[in-house]
Amino acid sequence: MKVYLDNAATTALDEKVLEAMIPYLSGHYGNPSSVHSHGREVRTAIERSRKKVAELLNASPGEIFFTSGGTEADNTALVCAIETYGIKHALTSPIEHHAVLHTLQECEKRGHIQLDYAQIDESGAIDMGHLEAWIQAHPKSLVSIMHANNEIGNLNDIEAIGNICKEHGVFFHSDTVQTMGHYVHDLKQLPLDAIVAGGHKFHGPKGSGFLYLNKKNKIRPFIYGGAQERSMRGGTENVYGIVGIAKALELAYEEMADHQKHVEKLKSSFIEQLREGIPGVEFNGLSANLDKSLYTVLNVSLPPSEENSGMLLFNLDLYGISASGGSACSSGATVGSHVLRALNAKAERDSVRFSFSRFNTHEEIDYTVEKLKELYGVTA
Amino acid sequence: MKVYLDNAATTALDEKVLEAMIPYLSGHYGNPSSVHSHGREVRTAIERSRKKVAELLNASPGEIFFTSGGTEADNTALVCAIETYGIKHALTSPIEHHAVLHTLQECEKRGHIQLDYAQIDESGAIDMGHLEAWIQAHPKSLVSIMHANNEIGNLNDIEAIGNICKEHGVFFHSDTVQTMGHYVHDLKQLPLDAIVAGGHKFHGPKGSGFLYLNKKNKIRPFIYGGAQERSMRGGTENVYGIVGIAKALELAYEEMADHQKHVEKLKSSFIEQLREGIPGVEFNGLSANLDKSLYTVLNVSLPPSEENSGMLLFNLDLYGISASGGSACSSGATVGSHVLRALNAKAERDSVRFSFSRFNTHEEIDYTVEKLKELYGVTA
Repeated sequence: MKVYLDNAATTALDEKVLEAMIPYLSGHYGNPSSVHSHGREVRTAIERSRKKVAELLNASPGEIFFTSGGTEADNTALVCAIETYGIKHALTSPIEHHAVLHTLQECEKRGHIQLDYAQIDESGAIDMGHLEAWIQAHPKSLVSIMHANNEIGNLNDIEAIGNICKEHGVFFHSDTVQTMGHYVHDLKQLPLDAIVAGGHKFHGPKGSGFLYLNKKNKIRPFIYGGAQERSMRGGTENVYGIVGIAKALELAYEEMADHQKHVEKLKSSFIEQLREGIPGVEFNGLSANLDKSLYTVLNVSLPPSEENSGMLLFNLDLYGISASGGSACSSGATVGSHVLRALNAKAERDSVRFSFSRFNTHEEIDYTVEKLKELYGVTA
Repeated sequence: MKVYLDNAATTALDEKVLEAMIPYLSGHYGNPSSVHSHGREVRTAIERSRKKVAELLNASPGEIFFTSGGTEADNTALVCAIETYGIKHALTSPIEHHAVLHTLQECEKRGHIQLDYAQIDESGAIDMGHLEAWIQAHPKSLVSIMHANNEIGNLNDIEAIGNICKEHGVFFHSDTVQTMGHYVHDLKQLPLDAIVAGGHKFHGPKGSGFLYLNKKNKIRPFIYGGAQERSMRGGTENVYGIVGIAKALELAYEEMADHQKHVEKLKSSFIEQLREGIPGVEFNGLSANLDKSLYTVLNVSLPPSEENSGMLLFNLDLYGISASGGSACSSGATVGSHVLRALNAKAERDSVRFSFSRFNTHEEIDYTVEKLKELYGVTA
């Protein structure tokens, strides 16, 4: 049995998304910047996609800029807001994705900003009192706090943070890569300057993403080279990627409540079976709290075990189960998870992130629990 | 009849390329950074693609970095070389693609470099004496000269320029977007620090590209956020884009001589028929010189005509012929071609870039000549 429980790393492309993309991978190959008929037909597809994304998010089409993914979108928002507005101070959290953390650390290294960190407790929850005090002390600065953590699933109250930022003229960016397509974002209600999406996190194509930039902001481009994306991003557009991400978001919104219900049941059942089946099991961050974490992510901390120490992912892989030790984006590096380190996770325990999608089944969850029990010697 | 003669803007995706991509758009959806089986199978595809590209270019796999396109690759090479090496002076030409021109102008605006321009004559040919003198006067600087111009097709002698640069410790970047897959690049022979490719210019996918960076160079990343591309480019890889660009390059190299022969015949026939059929026709840049220009590009300057003035592309479009007034990347802007302006092209003449691919036919060329003759009132 092959079980894919690494949906926070990437998701399977929905067949319907591929269907929508195929015409732009075969017949319609023009350059959207060309004024002739070959160009116009693809330009129309891009603008229709932009309108669709904007409608779903309750934003304006002029606020949506397509990119090569969430990481490029994060880089664009952060680097270009800091440089355009001459921002001198920024606050982020120690458990942000590297797309935010490394980007801001590089801005600091270049001498553009002084970077401070939000205080978090051992569950990864942000100290809102400290955050508010920091913002009050640093008006006209930049704050970047992710909507949900990709490793431990913690959801942050970006509406509350956004309101404090707004009051003090602070540019508020939120990495929404893990929540886009899984939760409703109503950008007429949410006080945000910039959020981002990566299509492959919600059954859209890899290499596609977008930046939402509130229309009150005018920042410089990140990639120079052409008038594309209203001169905000040079380079010939990835047309089928754009068509694909818009279709994926449309499908996600159409049945979001049903998907959420289905996946929440999987996650609850997984938590329950692990608690019953594996003595000493724990959960990292807030991931076992259904109200305060992504319904798609469960980060499991397993009791010390000589057989599995450092080998757990490998052992699961032998059973055909794909899960993750941390962010996929870091797994090329030799260091462990910076998120778990920041939570002071115990080194003698093995942690695994299981992340679910609407394509997972109860059978897969049961199989995974069974194998975990085998590995931990607690089979009946 | 629909005739696509805008192949310098973008090309049709080769069916064989799409075939190679499809498995990574359907079954193989893992994240290449994941260590489990779903991840490893796509990681293998990426590294196989990198090895293929490196082999074709006579480079090392470690010198190839996949990007979202040629523009991102140009931005990476220029911005990051300048910042990493603390380069203070740069030289480019006034007729570079905006991916180079605007990027370097932005570096100048930020106070990182002083930007100078190569001298060109009215055909767009570079004054090599001036170029050499500039390089001698500016050791340890950066030079960026494109291999071939995207609008007028002029080929530059990048081997000669590279040798002068090498002698003076100058970082030499060449925008090879128009020549990659159309000419052989032997990177063991060519003294280059960085060149780039955009897959969609040689029947590969949009949203795919790569940067070749000579292994002696270690520059900082452009996009931060993960350990991908050996920590040189954060963000989940566009796997099918990478598989596609490698396949497209492979196909291009396999039959390059045949393709060149076929397209050169189309171009020669086009030139000949225009010279015979339309009195007063001229050709911009060196595009009518088969030895000194891309075989894929012909930039035609048509005699003054009240009926066609400013309407020529529109009139061709009505006949189903897709061609271009300048670079597609600029056509969203309201200004004309910066290349033709730099050549002092006469404002009363209309210029059209026709650009060919191996999928074009003699019938299409004949049809286009016939329609141009009709538009210019010279039908038999």
